[in-house]
Amino acid sequence: MRKTFRLVISCPDRTGIVSAVSQFIKEREGSIVEASHHTDLESKWFFMRHEIDAESLSVDVATFREEFAAIAEEFDMNWYVKDSQDRPKVMLLATKESHCLNDIMHRWHTGELNCDIVGVIANHEALRSMVEWYKVPYHCISVPKDNKMPAFQEIEACIDEAQADTIVLARYMQIFPEYLCKKYRHQVINIHHSFLPSFIGAKPYHQAAVRGVKLIGATCHYVTADLDAGPIIEQDVIRVRHSHAAADMVRLGKDIEKLVLSRGLRYHLEDRVLVHGNKTIVFSD
Amino acid sequence: MRKTFRLVISCPDRTGIVSAVSQFIKEREGSIVEASHHTDLESKWFFMRHEIDAESLSVDVATFREEFAAIAEEFDMNWYVKDSQDRPKVMLLATKESHCLNDIMHRWHTGELNCDIVGVIANHEALRSMVEWYKVPYHCISVPKDNKMPAFQEIEACIDEAQADTIVLARYMQIFPEYLCKKYRHQVINIHHSFLPSFIGAKPYHQAAVRGVKLIGATCHYVTADLDAGPIIEQDVIRVRHSHAAADMVRLGKDIEKLVLSRGLRYHLEDRVLVHGNKTIVFSD
Amino acid sequence: MRKTFRLVISCPDRTGIVSAVSQFIKEREGSIVEASHHTDLESKWFFMRHEIDAESLSVDVATFREEFAAIAEEFDMNWYVKDSQDRPKVMLLATKESHCLNDIMHRWHTGELNCDIVGVIANHEALRSMVEWYKVPYHCISVPKDNKMPAFQEIEACIDEAQADTIVLARYMQIFPEYLCKKYRHQVINIHHSFLPSFIGAKPYHQAAVRGVKLIGATCHYVTADLDAGPIIEQDVIRVRHSHAAADMVRLGKDIEKLVLSRGLRYHLEDRVLVHGNKTIVFSD
Amino acid sequence: MRKTFRLVISCPDRTGIVSAVSQFIKEREGSIVEASHHTDLESKWFFMRHEIDAESLSVDVATFREEFAAIAEEFDMNWYVKDSQDRPKVMLLATKESHCLNDIMHRWHTGELNCDIVGVIANHEALRSMVEWYKVPYHCISVPKDNKMPAFQEIEACIDEAQADTIVLARYMQIFPEYLCKKYRHQVINIHHSFLPSFIGAKPYHQAAVRGVKLIGATCHYVTADLDAGPIIEQDVIRVRHSHAAADMVRLGKDIEKLVLSRGLRYHLEDRVLVHGNKTIVFSD
Repeated sequence: MRKTFRLVISCPDRTGIVSAVSQFIKEREGSIVEASHHTDLESKWFFMRHEIDAESLSVDVATFREEFAAIAEEFDMNWYVKDSQDRPKVMLLATKESHCLNDIMHRWHTGELNCDIVGVIANHEALRSMVEWYKVPYHCISVPKDNKMPAFQEIEACIDEAQADTIVLARYMQIFPEYLCKKYRHQVINIHHSFLPSFIGAKPYHQAAVRGVKLIGATCHYVTADLDAGPIIEQDVIRVRHSHAAADMVRLGKDIEKLVLSRGLRYHLEDRVLVHGNKTIVFSD
Repeated sequence: MRKTFRLVISCPDRTGIVSAVSQFIKEREGSIVEASHHTDLESKWFFMRHEIDAESLSVDVATFREEFAAIAEEFDMNWYVKDSQDRPKVMLLATKESHCLNDIMHRWHTGELNCDIVGVIANHEALRSMVEWYKVPYHCISVPKDNKMPAFQEIEACIDEAQADTIVLARYMQIFPEYLCKKYRHQVINIHHSFLPSFIGAKPYHQAAVRGVKLIGATCHYVTADLDAGPIIEQDVIRVRHSHAAADMVRLGKDIEKLVLSRGLRYHLEDRVLVHGNKTIVFSD
Repeated sequence: MRKTFRLVISCPDRTGIVSAVSQFIKEREGSIVEASHHTDLESKWFFMRHEIDAESLSVDVATFREEFAAIAEEFDMNWYVKDSQDRPKVMLLATKESHCLNDIMHRWHTGELNCDIVGVIANHEALRSMVEWYKVPYHCISVPKDNKMPAFQEIEACIDEAQADTIVLARYMQIFPEYLCKKYRHQVINIHHSFLPSFIGAKPYHQAAVRGVKLIGATCHYVTADLDAGPIIEQDVIRVRHSHAAADMVRLGKDIEKLVLSRGLRYHLEDRVLVHGNKTIVFSD
Repeated sequence: MRKTFRLVISCPDRTGIVSAVSQFIKEREGSIVEASHHTDLESKWFFMRHEIDAESLSVDVATFREEFAAIAEEFDMNWYVKDSQDRPKVMLLATKESHCLNDIMHRWHTGELNCDIVGVIANHEALRSMVEWYKVPYHCISVPKDNKMPAFQEIEACIDEAQADTIVLARYMQIFPEYLCKKYRHQVINIHHSFLPSFIGAKPYHQAAVRGVKLIGATCHYVTADLDAGPIIEQDVIRVRHSHAAADMVRLGKDIEKLVLSRGLRYHLEDRVLVHGNKTIVFSD
C-alpha cells in the first residue's frame, strides 16, 4: 500500500480555501493522489479530503501538521492529517451470529482492510474458537439483563486498554449505553439489519415480512444515543418475493449486512467519512 | 399476443387442489402456457395462477367458468377466469407532473401494456395537450381545498361512466377519499415516491435528504383508507450521494417512480397480483 | 430443515403431464410445499420441480421412485426424486485465493448450505490451516505445468474415493481436463470472474479495465470442455468508476464472485437447476 | 439553473496544477460549486473539472478564457471553459422504435436536459407526429441499402445547418459511416442494446437468449469507426430468467436502454465526460 498523508478538512465555505491548501501542498512538493471536495450549499459548509503521496513530500507528517495549523486557523477548519500507514486499532463486538465477524476478519487477514484488529468482545463463548484461529484476543463479557452497567464498564476498560479507536458492532445484540456513545462519538459503527429508517428496533426482518416489502436492506451507521438514528454511512438492499418468509429474509439479509458493514468500515478506516450534523459525506473511491 | 385464459385461485391449503384443477384442464384439452403456485405456510392458504392456451381448449371462457364452479365450491375458492384479450379499462389520474403519465401512455401506445386507457382525470389543465395527442379523453376536475367531496363525486361518476376497472394514481396529488378506496378495493394503484414504509406522507425526498439515506426508492401499492399503508405490489431504489440535494433526489427519483409504477401496473393488468391480507403475491414472469 | 421429496422432471411438452403427476402425488396424500413449472415454447420442452412434504406422504422415497416409473415412461421423462435430507457430498477445489472458499465453508459451517463438504483439493499449501480449522480433509495436489495428467488422475481418485457428487472450482486456477468435464457432466461448478460472455479466459479484470466498462461481474456456470462456455447458473455485477484500476476491480469483484458462487451452489444443491442444451432453468425460491 | 462556468482540463500530471488553477480562480473571486479530480496513475495523466459560480466571478467567460490561456500553456493542457447557460444543440437520429426518443424528448420538454433539440432525423416517417407535437423539425432521410452515401451526405448537411454539436443515435438502425465518425469525434453518442463488449453487432437480445445469460444490459458510448467499440460512457443491467424469451428481453431491455442513454447524454451535456484513449472519465454528480 502506497504511503500517503490524508488531509481531511471541514470548514465554513468561502473563497480561497482550495487555493490556500493546494498552494501549501505544492510548496512542499506534494503530489496529490486523490482529491475530493463537497460544498453543502444549504449550510454553506465545505468539505475536502486529499491523499498526498508521502514520498513526494519534503516534510514528515508532524511538520506538515505543525505548519498547516496557520491555514487551519485562518479558515476556521476542523481538520486532521494522518499517515495512511498508521493503522487504526479496531475492537469488534459480537454476540453469536458470525457472518459479519467472519467477513471482517477474513478481509483483514487477507490484507483488504488496513487496520489492526486488537480484540473481539462478545457476550457469549460461541465465537471464541473462530476468533482465536486468527490469533486475536477474545474477551467474553456477558451482559446480565438486570445489571448491565458493570458489564459495559468492563467493555469500556477493555476498549481503552487496547487503545482501540474504532469500535464495530458486528451484530452485537446489546444497546450501547448513552455514556459510551458520547465518549466514543463517531467511533462506533453499527450494522442494522434493515433499510433505515424503516423497521427501527428489534426483529426488522419480521417487521418487513409483515409489511410485505419487496426489498430488504441493511444500514451501516455511527451509533448515537438515539437508537438506530445516527448518521448513515452506507446502505444496500436485496430483492425478496412473496415466497420468502421471515426466516428466508434473515438468510438473504446476512449477505447484505456483511457487505454493507465491510464497505462502511473501509470508508471509515480510510478517512473517507465526514460527519455533518446527522448526515455523512462519504468520499468513496 | 397469444389468446389465453387466466385462471386465478386462492383458497385454504389442502391436498388435491392442483390435481383437481389440472385434471379439469386436461379433460378440456388445455395446454398450460404458464403455471405458478404459492403456499403461505403461516396462514395455510394456497394461491395459484394458470395461463392456458385458448386455442387448445375445447370450451369457451363462459363454459369454462360455468363448469369450473363445482371445483371452486368444493375447495372453497376465491377465483376468476379471464380471457387475456378482454382488455382492462384503465382510468389515469394526475396533477401536473407528467413523467409517470407519459411513461404509461407511451407504453400503452406502443402495445406494451395490454389495456384500454379510457381517460385521464387531472386537477389541472397542464397535461391536456399531451393526453389529447394520444386521442384519450381528458377530464379536468379541480379539487378545491375547502370542498373536495363534490369533486370526488364527479371523479367517481367519470370512472363509472367509462366503466374503468383499474384506476392509476400517476402522481395524483390528492388523497383518495375513504369511500372510494372501499368502493374500488384493490383496483386503485398508487405510486409513492419513497421506499415505504420509510417517509410516509408529504415530501418524502425532503425527508430522505434530511435523514441522509444512501438510497432512495419508490413504491407501487394498492390504495386503502390507511394512507400509504396498502398492499405493496412493487418497489425499487436508486443510489444517491452526499452531493445530491433534495432537488436532485426529486429528479433521480422520477426514473424509479415511473419504472416501478409501470411494472406494478403490468403485473396487475396481467392478473399476476393476488392480495392476501395486507400483502401481495406477485406471480411475475 | 423440513424433510421433503424433490421430484424434478423434464420431458417433451404435451397435455396431461401436470394432471398425471399431481394425481400421483394426491393418491399418496402428498402435500406440495413448492411447485415450479416452465415450458420452453421454442423447443416444446417441459420442466417441473416439486417439493413434497415427506411427512404427509404415505410412501417412502424408494416406493415413490418405483411407482412413479410408469408415469415417467409414459411421458418420456428425464427425472429423479430425492430426499432433501440426503445431503450432497461436495469437493471444493482452490488455489491460493481464499475469499470463495472461506465464504462457502462459513455458510456450510453455520448450516446455510445443506451438504457435506467431504474435502478440499488445492494445488498449494496456503489454505490448509483454514480448511483444517473446519475439520475438513485437505489434499494438496500440485499440478506441474509440463505434466498435468497424473495430477488430474490423482484429483479424480480423490473425488471418487470421497464419493463427491458436486465439485466446486472455488477460484481454482487450473483448466479442468476435458475427460473430467465429461465424466462429471453438470456436476462441476465454476466461478468465472467476469460477466460472461465478456472477457473469457485469463485476467478478466485487466481486460475490463482496458475496455473501460462501467460494471464488472461474475458468472457461476457448469464446466464443459468448452472454456468458460458452459451453461450459466447465476450472474451479478457491481458498478465501477474511472477511479478504479484493475487492482481495485480485483478487490471489488471478490464480493460479487463469492455471492454469485454461493447462490449458484445453493440452487444446485437444492435441485433447482435443470440444464437444457447450453442453458439452465433455475427454479429459484 | 444556476449560471456557472465549467472549466474542464486534462494534461500530463505534475505538481502545481491544482494550485495554479485554484489560485487563478481565487484571484477572480470565483466560488467553486463543484470540483472533481482524477489522476490516471498508469499514463500519468491528470483530469479536472470545476463548476464556478458565474455571479461570484469578477470576469466574464471570454475574459476568463483569454486570461487562463497562459496557465493552460504552462501545463500543456487540453481544456475549455464553457458558460452553463450556453445550451448545447442536439440532433437526434432514430428509425421506428420510439422509447429512447420519447424519453429524451420528454426530459428535454420538462426541463431536465439542459440543451436545445434542434431536430430529429429518421429514416422512416413513423415518428413524425410525436416529434412535431414537441415542435421540433423532423427530417425523414431514407437510407437505401445499395446507395447510402448520398443519404449520409444529406444527414451531414442537416446536422451542420442546424449547427448541432451533439448527435444522439437513439436506436438509429444504420451504421454511421467512418468519415462522419471522424468529423464528429466524441460528439456522436449511441445506445447499444447489450452490456458491451458482450454481443457486439446485430440482434444482441437474441444472442443473449441463446447464451442463456441471467442479466441483460445496455451501453451508452461514443461512436467510433470501430463498430460498438468506442469509449463507454454508461452501462446498466436488468435481471432476466429462463422464462424470458428473446421477445421479453427486447421489452425489458427498453427500460435499461432509455435510462442508460439519458444518463449518458446528461453527463455529456454537462461536460462531465472526458475521453482518455478509448476510455472515459465520468465526473458524475
